[in-house]
Amino acid sequence: MIAVIGSRDAPPDALADAEAVGRELARRGAMVVCGGMGGIMEAVCRGAKSAGGMTIGILPGDNPAEANAYVDIPISTGIGYARNAIVVRTGQAVIAINGAYGTLSEIGHALGEGVPVIGLRTWRLERARAGGVEDTGIIKATTPAQAVELALKAADARIAAWLSGNRLHP
Amino acid sequence: MIAVIGSRDAPPDALADAEAVGRELARRGAMVVCGGMGGIMEAVCRGAKSAGGMTIGILPGDNPAEANAYVDIPISTGIGYARNAIVVRTGQAVIAINGAYGTLSEIGHALGEGVPVIGLRTWRLERARAGGVEDTGIIKATTPAQAVELALKAADARIAAWLSGNRLHP
Amino acid sequence: MIAVIGSRDAPPDALADAEAVGRELARRGAMVVCGGMGGIMEAVCRGAKSAGGMTIGILPGDNPAEANAYVDIPISTGIGYARNAIVVRTGQAVIAINGAYGTLSEIGHALGEGVPVIGLRTWRLERARAGGVEDTGIIKATTPAQAVELALKAADARIAAWLSGNRLHP
Amino acid sequence: MIAVIGSRDAPPDALADAEAVGRELARRGAMVVCGGMGGIMEAVCRGAKSAGGMTIGILPGDNPAEANAYVDIPISTGIGYARNAIVVRTGQAVIAINGAYGTLSEIGHALGEGVPVIGLRTWRLERARAGGVEDTGIIKATTPAQAVELALKAADARIAAWLSGNRLHP
Repeated sequence: MIAVIGSRDAPPDALADAEAVGRELARRGAMVVCGGMGGIMEAVCRGAKSAGGMTIGILPGDNPAEANAYVDIPISTGIGYARNAIVVRTGQAVIAINGAYGTLSEIGHALGEGVPVIGLRTWRLERARAGGVEDTGIIKATTPAQAVELALKAADARIAAWLSGNRLHP
Repeated sequence: MIAVIGSRDAPPDALADAEAVGRELARRGAMVVCGGMGGIMEAVCRGAKSAGGMTIGILPGDNPAEANAYVDIPISTGIGYARNAIVVRTGQAVIAINGAYGTLSEIGHALGEGVPVIGLRTWRLERARAGGVEDTGIIKATTPAQAVELALKAADARIAAWLSGNRLHP
Repeated sequence: MIAVIGSRDAPPDALADAEAVGRELARRGAMVVCGGMGGIMEAVCRGAKSAGGMTIGILPGDNPAEANAYVDIPISTGIGYARNAIVVRTGQAVIAINGAYGTLSEIGHALGEGVPVIGLRTWRLERARAGGVEDTGIIKATTPAQAVELALKAADARIAAWLSGNRLHP
Repeated sequence: MIAVIGSRDAPPDALADAEAVGRELARRGAMVVCGGMGGIMEAVCRGAKSAGGMTIGILPGDNPAEANAYVDIPISTGIGYARNAIVVRTGQAVIAINGAYGTLSEIGHALGEGVPVIGLRTWRLERARAGGVEDTGIIKATTPAQAVELALKAADARIAAWLSGNRLHP
């Protein structure tokens, strides 16, 4: 299961990226989990469905009818944006596409819990550290296909670590 | 999607009921959503899988490996027992089997949000009211088949109300 | 800190009970934590403030202005009714007054986590068990003063157990 | 109420900044709300208590004994890092000091809900946009006193907007 994150309002090229990511994930046998609403979330679900994939939407509200039309399994959390933590935790890896502040909170939650994050034209994050600037752990991708490749590889590594006796979430 | 709730520790006859409920739900084409752990939750998933159904586990922890072996789609909430509210909200109706205090909290959340609750040898709830005792809105069933029948009927009524323009969650 | 739970709509005698409970808790030096909205929650806060106490409201929404006028410290959870689990966890003991379904979910969460629950004309809960009916662990009180007495005693016992090296939440 | 965010592990100068921020907030009559654990959270609470202030800790766990020694009011959420959304929502403004991934998620939640964020040597965030790079809305401060000044000003503006009929959370 790969989480794909991004905002409701997104420029056309980001939506096209999201749709391509969804299609590629489905073709390679991965389920898509996302926030279930519009924009990037809808585009990735549409892409996944066009290639016969399955999609899960972790909704902020309590009404499954709020999910976009390409969500197979709507989870009605009713906990608002606190659901962002659940979206990223439910994936074995995360692909962040473009994105606004909600996406930023999801990147923080993912990296904080050791879920690998692949970024496709998303936030660039730095923090000042003694002796210079430290980059975050976002793994940069330049194409949808590469983002999927990197995400599946990272997810496989986590599952392998888990099968060899370590905890899935480090 | 029908939510089935009940505790990790349950007597053998309740586990058998849960397995029969899962089997019957799958046979009638409904997906099972539950808390994803052991006991009643495992029994209903096992029943559903034995009849070719699909199962969703809304886990309290952040580790999908904690899900019972019959969960197809583990949702790692990481929010502890506050996830009980999500379990019942995600079903169009709820079947409560036996159950301990967690189940009690789920019944409260479901009834509070207008999600119909079918009870199979579960909690009996009363509150004092002016002029006597008021029973809760739990709909009592005596067999697994009847519980499934009542749950699907209640779910259909909600979906019909929703399609006719009302909100799914009254 | 004692959690007081009960619904927005409550009959006048229950509201009077809640106000008396708030007053008595404040007189005895306990802070009141509640859901922060109207009805029983407002009455208990009003009582506490009338006796110089301090009140905390754990709100379902994200707007502190939704709190009733007697809440000193509004906590804006934004997680809806999943906040019920937080209300009872934050008290060292719980007093349930009257109450509707939300209160029922809170009683379930509290008993499930080992937080003692004192009931003042609230839900009556039973479940069928082999060899008869089992009552729940709600400790019944008949007057506001007795409810406060029992709650403070239960809270003291928990704190003592915790100070002697055990975990506060068993 | 001003939320102060930052991580458990922080360098000495960031801890000193946090303590100065807490002291200054208390001197100017503001309550401190934070995540209630160690590091920056402990330092800001220690500073606030040294100047007679009041402190609230929104804990990830369910045990109030986990709070640092300078928390007056521990809120035991039990919802893990999803509590980050509650911390920032409960402040009328946020001061971010240094910080790791958890802080990043809190900045995202705050900016996403329109809560002003003042940054003191914290994350630097950029995202690519058509026609160049867009900075985030973090308001930069260079000293603890300036951070407090900016936070109180931003909080006052929000409260004024709210009193004039607008919603507190835009």
